[in-house]
Amino acid sequence: MKKILVLGAGRSSGALIRYLLDLAPSMGWTIAVGDVNVDAAKQKAGSDSFSQAIYFNIDDNEASVQSIHWSDVVISLLPPPFHPRIAALCLRFGKHLLTASYVSEDMRQLHEQALQRGLLFLNECGLDPGIDHMSAMMILDKIKSRGGIIRSFESFTGGLPETDPDNPWRYKFTWNPKNVVTAGQSTARYKEDGVFKYIPYQQLFRRITQVSVEGSGRYEGYANRDSLKYLGTYGLDHVETMIRGTLRNEGFCEAWDVLVQLGCCDDSYQMENTAELTHAEFLGAFLPRGKNDMVERLKGSTGAGTKVLEKLQWSGFFSNEKVGLIDATPAEVTEHILQKRWAMKTTDRDMIVMWHRFGYTLEGKYHVATASLVVKGDDAEQTAMAKTVGLPLGFAARLLIEGKIRSRGVAIPVLPEFYRPILSDLEAVGISMTEIES
Amino acid sequence: MKKILVLGAGRSSGALIRYLLDLAPSMGWTIAVGDVNVDAAKQKAGSDSFSQAIYFNIDDNEASVQSIHWSDVVISLLPPPFHPRIAALCLRFGKHLLTASYVSEDMRQLHEQALQRGLLFLNECGLDPGIDHMSAMMILDKIKSRGGIIRSFESFTGGLPETDPDNPWRYKFTWNPKNVVTAGQSTARYKEDGVFKYIPYQQLFRRITQVSVEGSGRYEGYANRDSLKYLGTYGLDHVETMIRGTLRNEGFCEAWDVLVQLGCCDDSYQMENTAELTHAEFLGAFLPRGKNDMVERLKGSTGAGTKVLEKLQWSGFFSNEKVGLIDATPAEVTEHILQKRWAMKTTDRDMIVMWHRFGYTLEGKYHVATASLVVKGDDAEQTAMAKTVGLPLGFAARLLIEGKIRSRGVAIPVLPEFYRPILSDLEAVGISMTEIES
Repeated sequence: MKKILVLGAGRSSGALIRYLLDLAPSMGWTIAVGDVNVDAAKQKAGSDSFSQAIYFNIDDNEASVQSIHWSDVVISLLPPPFHPRIAALCLRFGKHLLTASYVSEDMRQLHEQALQRGLLFLNECGLDPGIDHMSAMMILDKIKSRGGIIRSFESFTGGLPETDPDNPWRYKFTWNPKNVVTAGQSTARYKEDGVFKYIPYQQLFRRITQVSVEGSGRYEGYANRDSLKYLGTYGLDHVETMIRGTLRNEGFCEAWDVLVQLGCCDDSYQMENTAELTHAEFLGAFLPRGKNDMVERLKGSTGAGTKVLEKLQWSGFFSNEKVGLIDATPAEVTEHILQKRWAMKTTDRDMIVMWHRFGYTLEGKYHVATASLVVKGDDAEQTAMAKTVGLPLGFAARLLIEGKIRSRGVAIPVLPEFYRPILSDLEAVGISMTEIES
Repeated sequence: MKKILVLGAGRSSGALIRYLLDLAPSMGWTIAVGDVNVDAAKQKAGSDSFSQAIYFNIDDNEASVQSIHWSDVVISLLPPPFHPRIAALCLRFGKHLLTASYVSEDMRQLHEQALQRGLLFLNECGLDPGIDHMSAMMILDKIKSRGGIIRSFESFTGGLPETDPDNPWRYKFTWNPKNVVTAGQSTARYKEDGVFKYIPYQQLFRRITQVSVEGSGRYEGYANRDSLKYLGTYGLDHVETMIRGTLRNEGFCEAWDVLVQLGCCDDSYQMENTAELTHAEFLGAFLPRGKNDMVERLKGSTGAGTKVLEKLQWSGFFSNEKVGLIDATPAEVTEHILQKRWAMKTTDRDMIVMWHRFGYTLEGKYHVATASLVVKGDDAEQTAMAKTVGLPLGFAARLLIEGKIRSRGVAIPVLPEFYRPILSDLEAVGISMTEIES
């Protein structure tokens, strides 16, 4: 009997835990769901004989040791900074570890030890990073196997509200709001036309890539942090263009850029007196002095046009409502204001859009192929985000227990032994890329 | 016989050491100059019987302990990050410490211990911070003593080349080049018209204050990091406007802003392949893709006009010269390119411009007073910067040894017992503010 420990019973855990619970009786698994919030864990774990909720707190050594020692495979949905300590316990007790988080430097350094102990520490096995790696590698390997030489690879993914007709941003917080507000604050690095390129935060939301997804709509993409680190991983060292990024609906970036230019997304210092400020006074604190009213000074300072002003107005940035937060950073105030309109309601549905574009030469001719994925949420628990982040982890856990994954050490799912079965399992639940050759 | 240890024999030490050596015979002082570079220390310390050069390296515990143990008063011109360790040794051996650096949090925490041991740890006693504090406090105290109520205080200081007719920037590195290139990267905080205001890096060089200095010329000022922390120190908690900043010649900020917008001053990551890049390729790495040539894309991306382009061209940003630095950050490459034209030659003279503006009410009327200071360098050693940073430290050391300063603990020179004699000593060497009431 195999014991699977899922760490984290938050909003992205529903689809993963549902999948594991559904399989548990026939596979002979026992599932434990661990969280500092035991009620949340109980609610997700249900009341079957093969499942249990447990208290898990990485800062509580006894609880951590007990739960990890009990398990055979640990799947962690906890925030990335916790993973090195979880990985250390997995090493100590000889347990496999699966996460959807980026491989940190601390995690990378455990590779040799995990390898020696015969353990798999699989990371970046969710949506982005995760399904993006797997779907890209499948297509890249296919092009290469036909003799094609890859020249260019662009990949953008976004989590969006499915529909929200009255919301001019056409965006809501379908994922960690703090991460949305502070996104992009380190320089984006990528390769374009054979040259290494860099976009600082202050230009990021102005250098957008237009993306059109057949049957879904038009989007805009901005570059993610460091696309260069995947050149080697993807076997694309000699590619001329490589960029990974985030998708938003059209018009989002132009308006978000105004908040960036003003400094409203800075999380590095506490503002004075945030409890007493109104929303409008918060925005005004970033505007130059002048005789004109706030909206005129905003236009003069940032060039904000009608469409941008409409979005800021709709979000309440000009309102006289009190912020009411004590000692908050600009990013915290911005998140707080946006939450009032951008929080997902239980009736809201989310969606995921992923888009790859490949340029390659085959028999002397240049070809362009695109592939796209649109996933819609079923309800407030089985969201598109929860399904696409959680199911690849669940499938990987099953394959690992079944002995179908041989990789060990610190890994990401770019090898066929990962992407073939996982993409095939995703297809079976209706999640698959649409490929178009042009 | 009193022993004074000067730490740091770099470019700002000449005037301080000259002053101490001149007084040493009559005062019965012994002067030691300590530096990791003993030759530099020897060159500054000269070969008198009352002076010596010593090896000082804060990472070499024995050398540090020996030199600080030997001294009675330590004056440190070393980079600010070294000061907590130097202060710890001064505490251990019961020595006074004088610096021209900002009071760090680490330094602040030594206040009680220094007080208990009867030691003065005087910081911010150079130019800016230093003479700015002292000259401002003298005028503020004068206005208050006449019954005036301070409404507004603005203060800007800059180190500039005295003349440089062919240089369109009218700027050279008269001070630490790295600090010039990375200046302003944390949000500026100040108070304006009764409201707390914030300027992020991406707006800093666009929100300038026009400054006209009688008899000297027109300048532009941009805000420094955190003006709010001086509200209490200056006794200006209820002031409506308080801003401190840096002065440059007209036209500088507009051009510097283009380098900021592109990301050329980022010191947080290493670029790829900097050894092989040309200057023009370096700049191009920050520009969007496009069919137009680089200058056109630069204009399109940043709005750079003729005057800005002229400055970048003059600095060699469009040249095909190799950068030749290995694994450099953008800031390091920018500094390297700028050094080729902005390094001070031995025939160049520098100058310091300081400007204060005070708004106050007196007998129901609103008054504005300005005060300005222009100091010119004598030669490549007795620069304006070296004189204005070093002499206040020298004067403070003399006053301390003479028993004329009673303050103890971690302090900055905002009390009359500091500013009266030090400003008077400065006036005696021709360094004094010109005050204008309007």
